[in-house]
Amino acid sequence: MSKLILQSVLFQGKTQDILISGKKFSKVLRSLSERDYENADVVNCKGLAIVPPFYNGHTHAAMTLLRGYADDMPLMKWLTEYVWPFEAKLTAKDIEIGSRLAVLEMIKSGTVFFSDMYWKREQTMKVVKEMGIRATIGVTFAENLMSSQQVEDNFKFLKDHRLESDRVKLAVMPHSIYTVGEKMFKRCAKVAREEGYVLHTHLSETLKEVKDCKKQYGGTPVEVLDKWGILNDNFVGAHCVHLSEKEMQTMAERGAAAILNPCSNLKLGSGIPKVNALLNSGVLVGLGTDGASSNNNLDMHEEMKLVSLLAKVEGKNGCAEAVPAGMALKLATANTAFAYGIPAGVIAEGFFADALLLDLKNERLNPLHDLESNWVYAADRSAIHSVICNGKFVMKNRHVDGEEDIVKEANACALKIAGRK
Amino acid sequence: MSKLILQSVLFQGKTQDILISGKKFSKVLRSLSERDYENADVVNCKGLAIVPPFYNGHTHAAMTLLRGYADDMPLMKWLTEYVWPFEAKLTAKDIEIGSRLAVLEMIKSGTVFFSDMYWKREQTMKVVKEMGIRATIGVTFAENLMSSQQVEDNFKFLKDHRLESDRVKLAVMPHSIYTVGEKMFKRCAKVAREEGYVLHTHLSETLKEVKDCKKQYGGTPVEVLDKWGILNDNFVGAHCVHLSEKEMQTMAERGAAAILNPCSNLKLGSGIPKVNALLNSGVLVGLGTDGASSNNNLDMHEEMKLVSLLAKVEGKNGCAEAVPAGMALKLATANTAFAYGIPAGVIAEGFFADALLLDLKNERLNPLHDLESNWVYAADRSAIHSVICNGKFVMKNRHVDGEEDIVKEANACALKIAGRK
Repeated sequence: MSKLILQSVLFQGKTQDILISGKKFSKVLRSLSERDYENADVVNCKGLAIVPPFYNGHTHAAMTLLRGYADDMPLMKWLTEYVWPFEAKLTAKDIEIGSRLAVLEMIKSGTVFFSDMYWKREQTMKVVKEMGIRATIGVTFAENLMSSQQVEDNFKFLKDHRLESDRVKLAVMPHSIYTVGEKMFKRCAKVAREEGYVLHTHLSETLKEVKDCKKQYGGTPVEVLDKWGILNDNFVGAHCVHLSEKEMQTMAERGAAAILNPCSNLKLGSGIPKVNALLNSGVLVGLGTDGASSNNNLDMHEEMKLVSLLAKVEGKNGCAEAVPAGMALKLATANTAFAYGIPAGVIAEGFFADALLLDLKNERLNPLHDLESNWVYAADRSAIHSVICNGKFVMKNRHVDGEEDIVKEANACALKIAGRK
Repeated sequence: MSKLILQSVLFQGKTQDILISGKKFSKVLRSLSERDYENADVVNCKGLAIVPPFYNGHTHAAMTLLRGYADDMPLMKWLTEYVWPFEAKLTAKDIEIGSRLAVLEMIKSGTVFFSDMYWKREQTMKVVKEMGIRATIGVTFAENLMSSQQVEDNFKFLKDHRLESDRVKLAVMPHSIYTVGEKMFKRCAKVAREEGYVLHTHLSETLKEVKDCKKQYGGTPVEVLDKWGILNDNFVGAHCVHLSEKEMQTMAERGAAAILNPCSNLKLGSGIPKVNALLNSGVLVGLGTDGASSNNNLDMHEEMKLVSLLAKVEGKNGCAEAVPAGMALKLATANTAFAYGIPAGVIAEGFFADALLLDLKNERLNPLHDLESNWVYAADRSAIHSVICNGKFVMKNRHVDGEEDIVKEANACALKIAGRK
């Protein structure tokens, strides 16, 4: 088994040596023996601090191709006049190119995992395998956009598929309650349960969704999904902006997780997720970015800071104590990993060896009164020196192999689709 | 007069040559002649785009020394147990060191101007002159913290002081309505009017401030200041979180400007500034960061994105069209410069030659459907290649002279004050 030693890295206020064996942390907060050093790859980390990397709980990766293509307009105009016509032109190759830009951007901002709901999953899986990070890739269902043959192919894929990489998992992703009906939702849930998949869907993102659901089914999305038996501890809902406290309690009782995407929710004018109320209800809360066409980036550091800031003005009276730095960091790291069943996001023995090395010379990590506060509230991705996933460096000294070509190819691809080149 | 030509820089969708003569843009969107090139310093800007830099309308620069020193606690505990005891130990030299870290951080995030309310103004002025950016430095008044001799010295300084640099101006800065009484406020306003200074003060930052003011003076801060004749077109109020529409109208009628600091307001749980309502009332709105102890950085890009996001969920119904990218950029650039009477923040002939050069290879500026949207919503300071202020480079290829030493010195200074070293 390969061994990697991070030598003289700052962790919990002290300079330490940390041993990674294979894919996992094997010695943390303990002295290393001479034997540990035998045949180990030793990396000098003086002047660097180690923190958990980000786990992005909700994306549409290939939509980086639409970054900045249409902004600042009403949802339906945005979708019907810009997003859908653009997406209709996307080939499998385009989705590969867009996913590659997304994964590059995520690595450069310290993210080692994303949960992706999109089409042409094989292309996105290929990119993830190549680039060394983790992903849960959706087998996506949307009745309005699929033939019955495509639906059956999806279910067959979920039954037959054997994983080729321990970094890439599948999940069952019925798009939402407004695009997937009762019968198909229940079939999705059954497969997820039987095959051990996470079930991921958009949930109560907008007031319109909630209103339409009440009209169609006589209850809110949470009420209806619960009635259908969908809410379980393998359920991960994205957005969860418009929930009553009762609905939050229901989610908590069922063990369902919520992935908040505050930046996207604000940008589209959908509303402000109530993170304090969700946490108080006992719901497992993680974070995601949503797609780059409504964010407009995939930077989990921005979500982490924003969710903490919004928590402090939630409700009638502000509260500076709400979602402090350590909690915000947990939402963006361990909580999101746990929501997807991944034992990662914690720098501790037995967990997957995923980590960021931060450059302590960065002006926004100084003065160093409190590393956690500085990382969450003051710094940004420019402080990230290196990124480790599954025991291997995926970014070293701020550089990802081939990044210039990835950016160039994606730009050419997107402008061609837009008819501008 | 010195000449600088930015050759082949992307501006308004086209590659152009831009001529800077001395401190100002002298040819923009026009062809340069052979004569323009004579004795000019020509910089190849291929692959770079030019955008206006940021103007930070409200800071306490030296408070970078307190970054991360105390977070996530109630305001009074934060002030009395942490901030004030720390500040009481600050020497003039410490303030110089803290200001230098602040100016470094601002340059590295694309800011070329700040309006500073703090003590030991000479030290901050010295740093600004050295480092090549602009500032409006406050002559600060707070009755509870000053002897009558200090007050008289302040007024004398405002009368006597002659500017040593065209980049550094003074302003009269009575701290707030809860620390400066009627008589002194009126005297401040008189000096500001007579000597042509901006008058800058904290205004309606918290609900407590408004309540206390009503109790003490029988009206809100805006009502009381207006009654005292303070609100004029040289008045710049910081924060402006808790204003009624009527108060906004009063400010607009008087020509008073508002500097919003959304990140700080959220972090301290003070509330969400109502940017749409202010803009609709016709108030000149700019942006600032506040101090690094309540933000916790001086990154205007974060404020720019945040103010746009918050605008889209202001009021009962979200509106994705509110404060679009171009408007957000204007608030953080020209509007803030104009509030302080500086003809800058616009890339146009006759304006001060202040600019950012953005690296078009940056992954978050791609694909390049829309540079303005990408810059405001997707990118961050890592896309800034170079910073120009007053016709001179203050950062070139991401590097500021002496930055490592500035960071190191500030860290040592702050930890010593905190008793940790």
